[in-house]
Amino acid sequence: MLERFKPRKEDQVRIPEESLRETVTAIFEKMGETPEAAAEGADVLVMTDLRGVETHGVSNLMRVYVEQYSKGDLKPGPEWRVVRESPGTVTIDAGGGLGIMLGRRAMGLAMEKARKVGMGVVTMHMSGHLGAVGHFAMLAAEQDMVGVCITAGGDGVLPTFGAEPRLGANPISLAAPARNEVPVLFDAATSAIAGNKVSLAQRVGAELLPGWIADTEGNPILEETPVPERGQYSQLPLGGTREQGSHKGYGFSLMVEVLGSMLSGSVPTMLDNIPGESMFKNYFAAYNIAAFADLETFKDNMDGMLENLRTARPAPGHERVLYPGLYEHEEVQERRANGIPFHGEVVEWFDGISEELSVPRLRRM
Amino acid sequence: MLERFKPRKEDQVRIPEESLRETVTAIFEKMGETPEAAAEGADVLVMTDLRGVETHGVSNLMRVYVEQYSKGDLKPGPEWRVVRESPGTVTIDAGGGLGIMLGRRAMGLAMEKARKVGMGVVTMHMSGHLGAVGHFAMLAAEQDMVGVCITAGGDGVLPTFGAEPRLGANPISLAAPARNEVPVLFDAATSAIAGNKVSLAQRVGAELLPGWIADTEGNPILEETPVPERGQYSQLPLGGTREQGSHKGYGFSLMVEVLGSMLSGSVPTMLDNIPGESMFKNYFAAYNIAAFADLETFKDNMDGMLENLRTARPAPGHERVLYPGLYEHEEVQERRANGIPFHGEVVEWFDGISEELSVPRLRRM
Repeated sequence: MLERFKPRKEDQVRIPEESLRETVTAIFEKMGETPEAAAEGADVLVMTDLRGVETHGVSNLMRVYVEQYSKGDLKPGPEWRVVRESPGTVTIDAGGGLGIMLGRRAMGLAMEKARKVGMGVVTMHMSGHLGAVGHFAMLAAEQDMVGVCITAGGDGVLPTFGAEPRLGANPISLAAPARNEVPVLFDAATSAIAGNKVSLAQRVGAELLPGWIADTEGNPILEETPVPERGQYSQLPLGGTREQGSHKGYGFSLMVEVLGSMLSGSVPTMLDNIPGESMFKNYFAAYNIAAFADLETFKDNMDGMLENLRTARPAPGHERVLYPGLYEHEEVQERRANGIPFHGEVVEWFDGISEELSVPRLRRM
Repeated sequence: MLERFKPRKEDQVRIPEESLRETVTAIFEKMGETPEAAAEGADVLVMTDLRGVETHGVSNLMRVYVEQYSKGDLKPGPEWRVVRESPGTVTIDAGGGLGIMLGRRAMGLAMEKARKVGMGVVTMHMSGHLGAVGHFAMLAAEQDMVGVCITAGGDGVLPTFGAEPRLGANPISLAAPARNEVPVLFDAATSAIAGNKVSLAQRVGAELLPGWIADTEGNPILEETPVPERGQYSQLPLGGTREQGSHKGYGFSLMVEVLGSMLSGSVPTMLDNIPGESMFKNYFAAYNIAAFADLETFKDNMDGMLENLRTARPAPGHERVLYPGLYEHEEVQERRANGIPFHGEVVEWFDGISEELSVPRLRRM
């Protein structure tokens, strides 16, 4: 993550993993989730914060989820229904439950199919937010599979040449195991920046860079700009402008709508105005590596590729070349040892809700 | 395609589809391919030129292919071998044949699997160039499936922060049918611009835009620049700079290596220095829509989404909002009626090779 998004050192409060896990689990239980579901939801958020993916950790998401439960937009203990099934595929209606608690089960089904027929795909609609989709792709990588997870939802992103936003930030993730190298974990919004990065920039008082957002007429803003008021801007697709490839970001976003929404049998997100239907549409794919190739050869090849990338000569001004998942892996070690840094404002919110719900407060390191 | 890549009107020669098809087929036959394979290869190239995807039509590719056949790098009538197979997957060794002649067969196998188990994935390594990958994704869309096709190969693209190129332009494509709307056909290199765009810019005398390439030290070139000499630049991933999201383009490129090369059991392209092994690694996926959702509902939803995009209010300076595949569809109609415009230099090359091989010359409109 770019430096500009990180809380300043003096605004940081470090919280130990276990304390965060305990408090988040307790909050979810208070929202009506079972202890198992609550722990699963907490695991997704805590792992995401441990990986340093602060856009999709508790800072931005926890208060949104609590509000959605309170308003009845999220259903604790949802009814999960198989809508359609074939030897390699399942289509699920998630019954309005929070996605982060259901993703493991969906990816589990995809892996079950993959063990039998080589690969499995599960689409899941009518779920709340799925969190960082890469988390679920990693579940497959841990089982010697390649995992892909994507989610369609939201409507803040412009199509190239458009003045009216039509698409969500629609992220795509892939994870794949190696032997000695850290596994690949790629997870990226198909917009120039994730929607949550805007909230993050606002919290830390950072400006947005050229090519990230457009004005209300759809003109890409090509200088640094403070975060405008809600409704006074649209997000741009990855690439920013047509010349820099925004039609590709737009296309990737549409790809997510096709695989997530359309293959769920859902209406497209942009036309999704049926109450309760404005939920996320998710896609989970698991590739059983052994069905395609020798697993040991695969892992050796992955190691060769990742080492080759990691040791490439860096360009001036850069220390090293990373590959997706490497920095995140290092962050997990660092944050497990030293605690997870949060903006003080986030910890205050937790203190307030903890008192309100009578759950354990976050413990400072 | 940006205006800068198009040949100037006075440099254009228009050739009728049928003449191009006849000449290209005849050239492939002279290279030793069967009439069926030759016609299939010609179909891929001609359809690509009809769609206006000039980077991947005959202008750039035909002379490369002829050279590769002549040097023995491509094998006419290759031996196709199934390396591994499961109910939903097939891994193919293409035996060194030109990819454009084998892609239909590979996607056909993926569709066969998809009819049985809901979805099918075929990986194919040891093939020559696959042409425009979107062509093969479209084959699935024509059969009421969603098609995905990607190809890994080449090594001109930098990883983010790197000074040494490690990856290919590694394109990703997806096609999906609609009811009354033109089908989605998305096909994009994961680099800032396709490698062939550089050749195209050179031919038409266009400059490259900021953020498309880097100097030999890996510094992104952030002003307009003439095309440097071969070896004097590297390509940048989609996004261009880290700030504009090049780590996402880099990640998408790596995704292609994982799904294409790694799931083929191949060594990664960047380490691929075994003679004859420096070939393309391809991935074909077919999703049987009816296994996931009601096909008629899917098509209605696609129509709703595509119409909604197409009719979005455009930003100032733009006539309309497109979706991937719409312009290409319109180009097919226009070029079928008026001929396919080529740079005069391309037509001259064809005249030369036609004489050399005693095949029919291109007929001018």
